[in-house]
Amino acid sequence: MKHVLLTIGKLFSYICPPIILEKWQRMKSYIFMGYKSRYFQAIGSHCTLGAHTTYIGEQYITIGNNTHMGDFGRLTAYSYYPYTKQIFSPEIIIGDNCSIGSQSHITAINKIVIGNNVLTGPRVLITDNSHGASIDTILDTPPSKRELVSNGPVTIEDNVWIGEGAMIMPNVTIGKGSIIAANSVVTKDIPAYCVAAGSPAKIIKTLR
Amino acid sequence: MKHVLLTIGKLFSYICPPIILEKWQRMKSYIFMGYKSRYFQAIGSHCTLGAHTTYIGEQYITIGNNTHMGDFGRLTAYSYYPYTKQIFSPEIIIGDNCSIGSQSHITAINKIVIGNNVLTGPRVLITDNSHGASIDTILDTPPSKRELVSNGPVTIEDNVWIGEGAMIMPNVTIGKGSIIAANSVVTKDIPAYCVAAGSPAKIIKTLR
Amino acid sequence: MKHVLLTIGKLFSYICPPIILEKWQRMKSYIFMGYKSRYFQAIGSHCTLGAHTTYIGEQYITIGNNTHMGDFGRLTAYSYYPYTKQIFSPEIIIGDNCSIGSQSHITAINKIVIGNNVLTGPRVLITDNSHGASIDTILDTPPSKRELVSNGPVTIEDNVWIGEGAMIMPNVTIGKGSIIAANSVVTKDIPAYCVAAGSPAKIIKTLR
Repeated sequence: MKHVLLTIGKLFSYICPPIILEKWQRMKSYIFMGYKSRYFQAIGSHCTLGAHTTYIGEQYITIGNNTHMGDFGRLTAYSYYPYTKQIFSPEIIIGDNCSIGSQSHITAINKIVIGNNVLTGPRVLITDNSHGASIDTILDTPPSKRELVSNGPVTIEDNVWIGEGAMIMPNVTIGKGSIIAANSVVTKDIPAYCVAAGSPAKIIKTLR
Repeated sequence: MKHVLLTIGKLFSYICPPIILEKWQRMKSYIFMGYKSRYFQAIGSHCTLGAHTTYIGEQYITIGNNTHMGDFGRLTAYSYYPYTKQIFSPEIIIGDNCSIGSQSHITAINKIVIGNNVLTGPRVLITDNSHGASIDTILDTPPSKRELVSNGPVTIEDNVWIGEGAMIMPNVTIGKGSIIAANSVVTKDIPAYCVAAGSPAKIIKTLR
Repeated sequence: MKHVLLTIGKLFSYICPPIILEKWQRMKSYIFMGYKSRYFQAIGSHCTLGAHTTYIGEQYITIGNNTHMGDFGRLTAYSYYPYTKQIFSPEIIIGDNCSIGSQSHITAINKIVIGNNVLTGPRVLITDNSHGASIDTILDTPPSKRELVSNGPVTIEDNVWIGEGAMIMPNVTIGKGSIIAANSVVTKDIPAYCVAAGSPAKIIKTLR
């Protein structure tokens, strides 16, 4: 039985080789872009939007030209949080020529600005908000029913490279050209032209 | 060609707007719940079970009311490990009003108890077991053929909030209302009403 | 409405119980192996290749017998980087009886050798390359247009166990039987028969 199935698969590889499947994938991604694009505040040309990614609040999201959002991620701008009835004016602005890796998570209730040419690895988190402040009085409230808070907007300047699995927390600015090492947790501003690593991230090299 | 595909996608967005797809998703999730629910030891009402999540040993898993398990994760209770022929009596108990983020991984051979109102971000690990003890005599055995060991059960009390990518290791209790920062690795007990962060996680704030 | 859908799901669980779906999944995975296998440099018997995983440069990848690559991952060997027109001779060699967890990412432009019986958790990164060196002169170039660099090959010896979410960086050798704790970032060689943990990973136990 197993050999029959392996042979069926092999035959199929001659009838419909990967190059045809890839073309079909690309065609599907254009159809998906066409489907999605009118919901965004603005979206540039030559963008691709990952499949199996959860998009919420597209009307608060602006994406530049030639930018790619990865598969299996979350790109979410919340204007309303039903549990607390809070209303927000979120903004996510992503520049030109960016590439956000697969399984990444960008979530705003305040403001996230990503410049041009920003590259992230897979499984990156960029957030401007938390499920409640770290204060005593709310700790017996279920976390999902605490008021969402933003300690400040997130800004990632041009030409930043964010390594796989890194997390950019609220109220952080990462300066031009800086490099965030894989798996870092960035809780404070990182100036331009630095390498930062660790949890919490510290500057390990100043390159200019 | 590309423009034709973009236009097809756009047309499709008028014929079948996202609100209809979302309804269809919700309908599918109810069908999936109906399909899955009778295999669990017990599962409350108003739960949702993520799609593309691997469920193993549902008969050892109890889930309360109004709890959500994320997509693309793993929820596994192993009663038998074929490589070593070990037999376990695993138990996973998840309370009411919990939400487990997408791509999360909960795995037991012993006991994992998650209280009520627990919220986790995406890509969280909660485990009560390891692939073999850290002892010399087994290190030339392939890890997948080492005896699974549990150093103790895991207990996560009510109203705990676990940040994105955090990992809760075996033999850990996290007390009521505590907050585990994103990307932490919790290897020791965390008392109630604390904030813990880092790898290994340390208490960075005591809130009560 | 909801109750009707739950009932439809329940009925479906009697008509087509999970055991049939699992058989169908296994059948599909054999078909997929048959489809994919002729593109690899070599691939042993009894292997399984995860679905929804991105495979690039299979002709530079050798996989032994009885090895499993997880779902939703990336296994990529780049012979050409279009942005910089760089040409590489990548090699990925994975031995017998390995299991690479789901959502893992193995990426080479140089050489990655994984021995026999290596087990990894989900969401592991193994990379021999970076998007550009950490030097001043390139920091105003978009990271995706910087020359890819490899600081050296990666070697993971037999019987190594790599915990969930760990990252193995370029120019690292992990010796036989060693254990890499969950969420570690390994930036330097780890000798045989050790336990390493942290970011960057340090030896926390020498077992032989």
